[in-house]
Amino acid sequence: MTHEIAVIPGDGIGQEVTPAAVEVLEALDVDFDFVEGDAGDAVKAETGEALPQATRKMAADADATLFGAAGETAADVILPLREVVGSFANVRPAVSYPGLDAVQPDTDIVFVRENTEGVYSGIEDEITEGVRTLTRVVTEEASRDIAEFGFDYAKQNGFDDVTIAHKANVMRETDGLFLETAEAVAEERGADYDTALMDALAMHLVMHPEDYGVVICPNLAGDMLSDLAAGLVGGLGLLPSANVGEENALFEPVHGSAPDIAGQGVANPSAMILSAAMLLDHLGYDDEGDRVRAAVEGVLDEGPRTPDLGGDASTDEVTSAVLDRL
Amino acid sequence: MTHEIAVIPGDGIGQEVTPAAVEVLEALDVDFDFVEGDAGDAVKAETGEALPQATRKMAADADATLFGAAGETAADVILPLREVVGSFANVRPAVSYPGLDAVQPDTDIVFVRENTEGVYSGIEDEITEGVRTLTRVVTEEASRDIAEFGFDYAKQNGFDDVTIAHKANVMRETDGLFLETAEAVAEERGADYDTALMDALAMHLVMHPEDYGVVICPNLAGDMLSDLAAGLVGGLGLLPSANVGEENALFEPVHGSAPDIAGQGVANPSAMILSAAMLLDHLGYDDEGDRVRAAVEGVLDEGPRTPDLGGDASTDEVTSAVLDRL
Ligand SMILES: CC(C)[C@H](C(=O)O)[C@@H](O)C(=O)O
Ligand SMILES: CC(C)[C@H](C(=O)O)[C@@H](O)C(=O)O
Repeated sequence: MTHEIAVIPGDGIGQEVTPAAVEVLEALDVDFDFVEGDAGDAVKAETGEALPQATRKMAADADATLFGAAGETAADVILPLREVVGSFANVRPAVSYPGLDAVQPDTDIVFVRENTEGVYSGIEDEITEGVRTLTRVVTEEASRDIAEFGFDYAKQNGFDDVTIAHKANVMRETDGLFLETAEAVAEERGADYDTALMDALAMHLVMHPEDYGVVICPNLAGDMLSDLAAGLVGGLGLLPSANVGEENALFEPVHGSAPDIAGQGVANPSAMILSAAMLLDHLGYDDEGDRVRAAVEGVLDEGPRTPDLGGDASTDEVTSAVLDRL
Repeated sequence: MTHEIAVIPGDGIGQEVTPAAVEVLEALDVDFDFVEGDAGDAVKAETGEALPQATRKMAADADATLFGAAGETAADVILPLREVVGSFANVRPAVSYPGLDAVQPDTDIVFVRENTEGVYSGIEDEITEGVRTLTRVVTEEASRDIAEFGFDYAKQNGFDDVTIAHKANVMRETDGLFLETAEAVAEERGADYDTALMDALAMHLVMHPEDYGVVICPNLAGDMLSDLAAGLVGGLGLLPSANVGEENALFEPVHGSAPDIAGQGVANPSAMILSAAMLLDHLGYDDEGDRVRAAVEGVLDEGPRTPDLGGDASTDEVTSAVLDRL
């Protein structure tokens, strides 16, 4: 069966790492048709729209989407794209790899981030001059969806520790609902779990990441905690992510368009290639997903490495090394 | 001039570390009158109120308050107490000390956290069953107050780097107002500064804390980022904080009541004693504040140390060692 994959490189290093991931996918024995769409600062400068209707439709119609990064317009691109694919779960594994210089070399955590609500509601008002509000929304339905997804993910992927992150001591009603719904899901499944206030969790993650497995988080907490964990394992160049919906999904590196190094051909393609591996898993090509991960891990361990990891290799050299190991 | 200091030990290790800090203050040549008040789980169990009116009044009337920690009722105690003292700025230095095993030994950051609004508004609603909202409030006035405080603090304390943390790419109107107001303050003062998205900042703080000095944050971001930084320097047992108002202030360790170790006499009193040092600075006893900090630093460097820092000393032994060095 042919799968149609929408490819949206976007801006900056998105233009450099996305082709690398596509090359890796093309090297596998999978039946993918690639269609390419525009999004981001560049297309906005040309057309006035950061996310053209054609790109939206492409992502909606595809079996899965690979997205690189966008610049200033990142939120205008990625937030609607997550909606287009119906994503309710943002899955962000943070793993330290042998041989890399990590702040915490013993990290193997998957953040399962609620991806539709919280402070991402987009509802903001000016009440009077100088006084503005944002309506943070938490529903039982979205809380249940993310908790079910998180506990299922932990079970399927062999994680014993599940932590529910929240700030229900301050956001009593909203995070209270998130917490109580997630706890109810755990009880229904007879699953073990811990709960953690998100501030205390930030501290513990820094000191003892080895104590955590799957962390189920509200939207903004997941945004911050997964970036924190990127810092623990050696930077954003390593973190892939999946935005998972019922019938569609989008895969993207956690990093942005990195304007400081864009155009130099030295961006680390690992996060993007690992995102492609998550896409393979998602479409049922688990063995291929594992092969790609093993190849990337081999290269991370033995080099060549891009400058963000202390090496001096180019994006192309790293990509070729991954291809050689497939 | 005699200063009246309200002392509120609270629950758990608050009962152990607060007397330690008072002992240190009593050993100095300062004219303090101490009055003690109840707050927390224990007094709630007895009286039904986590923060009795008498304690509220004591904090309101005092020149400054020392607060230990509260248990389950932490939010019911500390949030109203911050209001009672009119605190708009929560100052949280995170410093790594020589000789201690820190995740990042080169950390010297002061978080200046907005302390009155954001998601701490307390405005929550149930819209319909299973759908709840929280109104996040950002005002120009509070944003200006915290930014002015932050830039002044940086100048007075010799910090070159000031970073304004925000998530204005998602919370466009609210954090947009926070960011633009803080930037306006910087321009007015001709001060250098950087801005950082709070997620990216979490990553950079973990990898390169040495790049940061003063970080001005919205309320919840400051809550999380300062705990993150506590993890970098060796745990919450080391972080003091000041809740500063126009005419009053409250000083407390960043840690909580630590029920797991409460009652054993092994709690690290450093954060609490360092909070007392901030109280001394605040009341104009800068030399005494420096003396206390130097004594604590000496003990952290050479021991004795409590178990959280890998030692086996008791709270009393550490406190005596600090007193010996004064
Ligand atoms: C660009 C931004 C809107 C986005 C988010 O906050 O979700 C990004 O930080 C991410 O984590 O993918
Ligand atoms: C106890 C809680 C309400 C409080 C806060 O969120 O401010 C605490 O985490 C802190 O940082 O002092």
